[in-house]
Amino acid sequence: MAKNITTREADYNQWYLDVIKAAQLADYSPVRGCMVIRPTGYALWEAIQHDLDARFKATGHTNAYFPLLIPVSFLQKESEHVDGFAMECAVVTHSGLEAGDDGNLKVKGELAEPLIVRPTSETVIGHMYSQWIQSYRDLPVLLNQWANVMRWELRTRLFLRTAEFLWQEGHTAHETAEEAQEETLRMLDVYADFVQDFLAVPVIKGRKTESEKFPGADTTYCIEALMQDGKALQAGTSHNLGQNFAKAFDIGFLGRDNQRHLCWTTSWGVSTRLIGALIMTHSDDEGLVLPPRMAPVVCAIVPIYRKDDEREQVVTACRRILVNLCGEKAVAQAESLQGTREQLTVFFGEGHRQQVILDLRDSKPVDKHFYWEQRGVPFRLEVGPRDVEKNACVLKTRLSREKEFLQQDTLSGGWLFEKMEAMQAE
Amino acid sequence: MAKNITTREADYNQWYLDVIKAAQLADYSPVRGCMVIRPTGYALWEAIQHDLDARFKATGHTNAYFPLLIPVSFLQKESEHVDGFAMECAVVTHSGLEAGDDGNLKVKGELAEPLIVRPTSETVIGHMYSQWIQSYRDLPVLLNQWANVMRWELRTRLFLRTAEFLWQEGHTAHETAEEAQEETLRMLDVYADFVQDFLAVPVIKGRKTESEKFPGADTTYCIEALMQDGKALQAGTSHNLGQNFAKAFDIGFLGRDNQRHLCWTTSWGVSTRLIGALIMTHSDDEGLVLPPRMAPVVCAIVPIYRKDDEREQVVTACRRILVNLCGEKAVAQAESLQGTREQLTVFFGEGHRQQVILDLRDSKPVDKHFYWEQRGVPFRLEVGPRDVEKNACVLKTRLSREKEFLQQDTLSGGWLFEKMEAMQAE
Repeated sequence: MAKNITTREADYNQWYLDVIKAAQLADYSPVRGCMVIRPTGYALWEAIQHDLDARFKATGHTNAYFPLLIPVSFLQKESEHVDGFAMECAVVTHSGLEAGDDGNLKVKGELAEPLIVRPTSETVIGHMYSQWIQSYRDLPVLLNQWANVMRWELRTRLFLRTAEFLWQEGHTAHETAEEAQEETLRMLDVYADFVQDFLAVPVIKGRKTESEKFPGADTTYCIEALMQDGKALQAGTSHNLGQNFAKAFDIGFLGRDNQRHLCWTTSWGVSTRLIGALIMTHSDDEGLVLPPRMAPVVCAIVPIYRKDDEREQVVTACRRILVNLCGEKAVAQAESLQGTREQLTVFFGEGHRQQVILDLRDSKPVDKHFYWEQRGVPFRLEVGPRDVEKNACVLKTRLSREKEFLQQDTLSGGWLFEKMEAMQAE
Repeated sequence: MAKNITTREADYNQWYLDVIKAAQLADYSPVRGCMVIRPTGYALWEAIQHDLDARFKATGHTNAYFPLLIPVSFLQKESEHVDGFAMECAVVTHSGLEAGDDGNLKVKGELAEPLIVRPTSETVIGHMYSQWIQSYRDLPVLLNQWANVMRWELRTRLFLRTAEFLWQEGHTAHETAEEAQEETLRMLDVYADFVQDFLAVPVIKGRKTESEKFPGADTTYCIEALMQDGKALQAGTSHNLGQNFAKAFDIGFLGRDNQRHLCWTTSWGVSTRLIGALIMTHSDDEGLVLPPRMAPVVCAIVPIYRKDDEREQVVTACRRILVNLCGEKAVAQAESLQGTREQLTVFFGEGHRQQVILDLRDSKPVDKHFYWEQRGVPFRLEVGPRDVEKNACVLKTRLSREKEFLQQDTLSGGWLFEKMEAMQAE
């Protein structure tokens, strides 16, 4: 049992934080309520971005980028919206700093109008849409933004609720109410399919009550993910904004009837909170468990030896396995570019997204065991001096925690891919 | 000649802005000095991210995410650094807004210490490294961050200099001065190769003078891109930070000699400014020109007809060409997911990055000609009623502006890929 992880039974909340710490997913930042997303955690967000973005593009959306800072007057234009967000906005009031008499920095250059760090971007995007959309021919507008947002929260929890978080926000404008409703439900389906297929997290679709809906929306739909403690966690929302923001920002168009009409708009988002859902759904008392389709590192290859004269032949066998899985070309390229690093990182499969790592670090086998186990890497292949003689190796599977004895030359990229798909289905 | 684009000869600066406007790459935002990156412009940034990120990972780097807001006291810890950035920082002083007596929103919740929106992240990353790095076994640390940053500038110009911009910032920590220098030069080479191979922009490598170097660096190296007007544009920088930030933030480690030492650190970055370099290098008086390897839309297929009874057979032929280029499966999937949109967007090649578009909009052929021409799409395939009879089509190449008559059934994904590589080499 892992000594650095509280069991779920003993304390579910502490278990969650211990899993994050053991896998080095995130850390607290010097600014209260904000977090640092460490490489193993950020790689999970990249996997989410990669798969979800392809789903957005397949449904005809494109990405764009709108400014971080929003004039306070914009927030005031939609009355429910301002009530929902004003209390928790980070406010920029000055455009610089200068040394004071005591040598400390003082603010300088007060802005004529304060700016807020976006808590969400309906207002600034509404302002731009009112300029870009002229005629029904310009509709629908189907944009998405990947960005950071801030909502100053009193109680924060890594990934689940932080003052700054990363997310995507889709913003669309349509000719008719029917099309906006169709889009709202389409994106809810995209979210549900994505979370179930890729993150292997079961979800239920629902509709928020009047008091829970997004400030400024007519209707808010959501997906809720089911956690191990039986609780549901909100994992994504899709809003039909009706004509509320179109009225507030005058987003109009010349219709097919040659009359001016207001657009019907939607917005929808998921955030780094999904990583929290992922952790809570799959992990166990030994640490993080990752579904193989989304795991950044699919497999770690670990040479095991005691004496220096064993090292060479064991490492040679491990490198041969690496070539079997990833191809000689990919391995040679990684070697030439990464020099004499202690972990050789090689791309696996298409798209430069997933990797296999050869762990050449000079640490104890038991430490390497915990290292890869607690990071949730789906598969480990270990080779010791006796395995070399028999042309064998040991496969350890993170999810089942089972061992399997294999011949080295049966291993290939196709073999690993089949193993991954079989585990994903479990 | 395009009426909406000033010629380079008449006014080079105005030409640059006209090309951006005609291609709908970016727009001015309601906050002074900030820009909105429109979908056609953002797709260029995505292409840059995709290719460059794979080069970072191939050289053993991983991505992470650090907070947007940085305590003012952090900035003060490195004396050159604070002098370089204090004057142009956006400063957050309050954590919320509330309605005042006059109904307008007022700031509330003054922070004990003001926070700056990151102009760059050496300070907060240095703070975290000092906690994460204990021993020489933890080195090197090789991280990169994709993020937005702010530097309030007086004179701004779309993509080239804006108050908020998007970039990547690499931050590494090493055991020895030699390794840090090696890393600094390695990343300069990665930048130079990337800009030349992928963006097809010629560059020269150089070293900045004492007065031009990054505030807090020992040495700053840069790549400069050569523009059509003969000027050089700074396109990326790589800094050897020596032990300056290690001293300021106490980034130390227990060495192989069992003594405590300070790390040697580097940082390196490129930004959305690269899009400005791309525009200025390749575009002509007709608008944007994109190198095919990086173009988000590689080819537009345009049906040309006058009468309604011609439409069906022309569109059928265009769809067949689309299938030849992208495969039946990809086309059928796009049709089922995108419904009756006026532009059918289908993925081309591997990796879900580049696309082919079937332009079914009900607009005049001359308008479509300008639309695709000014957006820099490398290839256009046009099919009219006469072409249908002859099983023919017309290929128009953006770079050479030449026409080529082709048989429809000679077109394939491989054919388009060869055309792209031939054009990239020009």
